[in-house]
Amino acid sequence: MEKIFTYESLRRFTQDVFTVIGCSAEHAALAANGLLRADLRGIDSHGIARLVGYVRLWEAKRANAKPQIQLVHETPSTGVVDGDGGLGLVVAPFAMNIAIQKAKQVGSGWIAVRNSNHFGIAAEHAMKALDEDMIGIVMTNASALVAPTFSIERLLGTNPICVAIPSGTEPPFVADLATTTAANGKLEILQRKNQQAPEGWIQDKDGHISTNPHELKAGGALLPLGGDRDHGSHKGYALGAIVDIFSGVLSGANYGPWVPPFPAYVPIPENMPGKGIGHFFGAMRIDAFRPAHEFKKDMDQWLKRFRNAKPAKEYDQVLVPGDPERLMEKKRFQNGISLMSAVVQDLDNLAEKFKISPLE
Amino acid sequence: MEKIFTYESLRRFTQDVFTVIGCSAEHAALAANGLLRADLRGIDSHGIARLVGYVRLWEAKRANAKPQIQLVHETPSTGVVDGDGGLGLVVAPFAMNIAIQKAKQVGSGWIAVRNSNHFGIAAEHAMKALDEDMIGIVMTNASALVAPTFSIERLLGTNPICVAIPSGTEPPFVADLATTTAANGKLEILQRKNQQAPEGWIQDKDGHISTNPHELKAGGALLPLGGDRDHGSHKGYALGAIVDIFSGVLSGANYGPWVPPFPAYVPIPENMPGKGIGHFFGAMRIDAFRPAHEFKKDMDQWLKRFRNAKPAKEYDQVLVPGDPERLMEKKRFQNGISLMSAVVQDLDNLAEKFKISPLE
Repeated sequence: MEKIFTYESLRRFTQDVFTVIGCSAEHAALAANGLLRADLRGIDSHGIARLVGYVRLWEAKRANAKPQIQLVHETPSTGVVDGDGGLGLVVAPFAMNIAIQKAKQVGSGWIAVRNSNHFGIAAEHAMKALDEDMIGIVMTNASALVAPTFSIERLLGTNPICVAIPSGTEPPFVADLATTTAANGKLEILQRKNQQAPEGWIQDKDGHISTNPHELKAGGALLPLGGDRDHGSHKGYALGAIVDIFSGVLSGANYGPWVPPFPAYVPIPENMPGKGIGHFFGAMRIDAFRPAHEFKKDMDQWLKRFRNAKPAKEYDQVLVPGDPERLMEKKRFQNGISLMSAVVQDLDNLAEKFKISPLE
Repeated sequence: MEKIFTYESLRRFTQDVFTVIGCSAEHAALAANGLLRADLRGIDSHGIARLVGYVRLWEAKRANAKPQIQLVHETPSTGVVDGDGGLGLVVAPFAMNIAIQKAKQVGSGWIAVRNSNHFGIAAEHAMKALDEDMIGIVMTNASALVAPTFSIERLLGTNPICVAIPSGTEPPFVADLATTTAANGKLEILQRKNQQAPEGWIQDKDGHISTNPHELKAGGALLPLGGDRDHGSHKGYALGAIVDIFSGVLSGANYGPWVPPFPAYVPIPENMPGKGIGHFFGAMRIDAFRPAHEFKKDMDQWLKRFRNAKPAKEYDQVLVPGDPERLMEKKRFQNGISLMSAVVQDLDNLAEKFKISPLE
């Protein structure tokens, strides 16, 4: 039960919703573009399906539609941005832009962000660096769903890392990965379809491996990349922890089990040590290391060598990080984006409530 | 068949060997300290057991004992170091020191290194940042043993990432991880003992999952963290690729399948596009983001919360990255370091060949 919409109609609708809740025209456009990038790139869990969630956060006064986003501390290559409780979709471009400006001036720029909210997909922000011949690096923490190795408590979010690297004639390298075996969105799909998960994705409330995706709602947890100790889960745990500390502790945001949740019906944690959720943005100018044309020549050779690697006979080809999303983005931009009927219903309800033109 | 030696006797012996092959007194001490750190921290595969390998590299004229290490390009926050073919154990401290000096001046420092060799364990270099109230970040590429997801060709090394983060009263966070499910050293142990590996560590020459550690010498490959696509190996592959590009492509070193191997009997690849192997070093001053005492208070709270997390009943406690290595370092510094008899024999042979005092 799916229905197909053009990118532009979904983008326009999303922009209208952000405008109605009080965003400036500029912020509404920025937030809509950012959110829709997830749908274009095939990360449906982070796109327009979450629009209702953003509205509920605003209704619960847990997201500020008119933030005064500020750079509150800086050195030539670093800084901290306070998002004033704004939408991460708006705060993130502000911070990434400062990182890029600093990289122009001193070679690299690194901005930790506090007092923000969910920012959509990390790749949307990291890829801003590509047009500037820079490497973009983006991380964010998120509310705790993941148990560290040996723990039965959830202490980390799915905490993604994105690194976007420019190239010459080859399509660029864009890795955007949750530091868990499987992203939460994949679990939600299994829950909806009542299907079992592979081993290594989740554990039950006692810390035992489980394949039942509903365990996550019964005290279970997502597992760090690796799954269990024998398969390197301590490494996935370490990576998620690094993201949490860079995003949360370095900025003065919340961290670990104190990161506020995205669903507005989930109470915020007690005794929060910081402000909102945290992000971390980096930009490195290529020619702060090597002449850009030399780097791009080598990067093209790297990309060609990996894309042309010999695949195992079960597979057509070896991919470079970002390839599936890039192909999906092109396809969906041309052919439209399909939404599940439950999502369409949510959006129709929003249209009625806010008296804006419905999706068509 | 093991024999125990004091840290100091192993360090002295190692320093003597590096002196005999022509290192300056300063470089020999630096290299010996760096190599022995691996033994202290329990990473036996990267310590004195490799000393003979370093000597063979020098004998094959693939390592330069008297390098003119140079900063060949820089901006206020970035730079490239050419290691002149020197031992990574000597090149790495040079580069990390520049990263730290740049961080003192402009908040952060980022140095890509080319024309280097293996540098021991990444933690040895990243932890230099801790005393400066900085976060240390270290990566290196290595010769190709790892197959990207879907590939039957080996195109990446085990490419480790280390991040060291300072704290207040709690012991610091030090994550040092190969971006593979299992480090090569663990495979070597299984090969020696003729034991099977868990699924997810290796594949055979056709790209099929294998548990036979000897497959690695028959055209098989190590697997990226995650093991297979269902368990997130595309993420481990992406992380290993990021390390390769930051270390190799950004610096002008070799990358991917062209990284020269550590064993001197393995021929160097044809048509190498760069110089030597590559590393990447970063330092970020804590107070370039927040007052250091505020950060440390939060970091201590983070560390306590994770160390005191409720473990599953099969486990005693939840660990923070770096805890096992820190405890091992303390223990081995006090009680000595045990070496397998094959390693002792190698070192005795070295002593005889170079006419230096044998281990005692």
